[in-house]
Amino acid sequence: MEDTQQQKDELYMRKALAEAEVAYNAGEIPVGAVIVCNDKIISRAHNLTETLHDVTAHAEMQAITSAADNLGGKYLTDCTIYVTVEPCVMCAGAIGWAQIKRVVYGAGDEKRGFVRFAPAALHPKATVTAGVLEDECRRLMQEFFRSRR
Amino acid sequence: MEDTQQQKDELYMRKALAEAEVAYNAGEIPVGAVIVCNDKIISRAHNLTETLHDVTAHAEMQAITSAADNLGGKYLTDCTIYVTVEPCVMCAGAIGWAQIKRVVYGAGDEKRGFVRFAPAALHPKATVTAGVLEDECRRLMQEFFRSRR
Repeated sequence: MEDTQQQKDELYMRKALAEAEVAYNAGEIPVGAVIVCNDKIISRAHNLTETLHDVTAHAEMQAITSAADNLGGKYLTDCTIYVTVEPCVMCAGAIGWAQIKRVVYGAGDEKRGFVRFAPAALHPKATVTAGVLEDECRRLMQEFFRSRR
Repeated sequence: MEDTQQQKDELYMRKALAEAEVAYNAGEIPVGAVIVCNDKIISRAHNLTETLHDVTAHAEMQAITSAADNLGGKYLTDCTIYVTVEPCVMCAGAIGWAQIKRVVYGAGDEKRGFVRFAPAALHPKATVTAGVLEDECRRLMQEFFRSRR
């Protein structure tokens, strides 16, 4: 029996969570992302802003650059991006430029998320699914910030 | 006699325009940017999205990454970014994360610009100056798109 979309979404979000855990263990804000095209992961990345001293090194940005490199073109029209935390304005803008058709995220981000601050950033035909493995994604962020206090 | 702020702004915008011309000659959408800190240019960049097959390779993104590398820290709190065209949502998000305190741009961009699509993307204390060498910045864009028809 084939997996339902929800099962697939949870499967890929677990891969994004594994990336977020790598970030956590490196002292980075724990956000991870994977990009999927035709049921295949074509890139995976985690936040590296501290390691690279670069505010643009969010998980999504690196996943997009790497996926385009993998596909050999800059548009990711048939792809879905899975990210553990709601993309910020910068990342949503990049997701829009790349014409990614579906965005799936775990925990929301009221302070920086695109849903509130740049609601028209994505491609007009893109769809958004929020809250996949939300508790696990949020817990990892909360543990990180608690350990930093 | 010391230069006025307007004279300085035009001087630095000319440097950004020179970068945009490099992009133009390489077949890239002609946008250039420079970042200035204490009256010194610390980075200059132009759009490279076609060359790199990477939607994230806007002039501003590269200028930010390079300026942070130059300063040795990821925040550009005392810097001004000069860019020939109004930053898009992605770039405005990056400018916000970098805490750049002043944004100066030439031509507006009604279709993609942050002023309309992500008005709260910049740092809350950042200031914006629009329209510096606006005609020249716009003309370069128009010539590019005319030549592509």
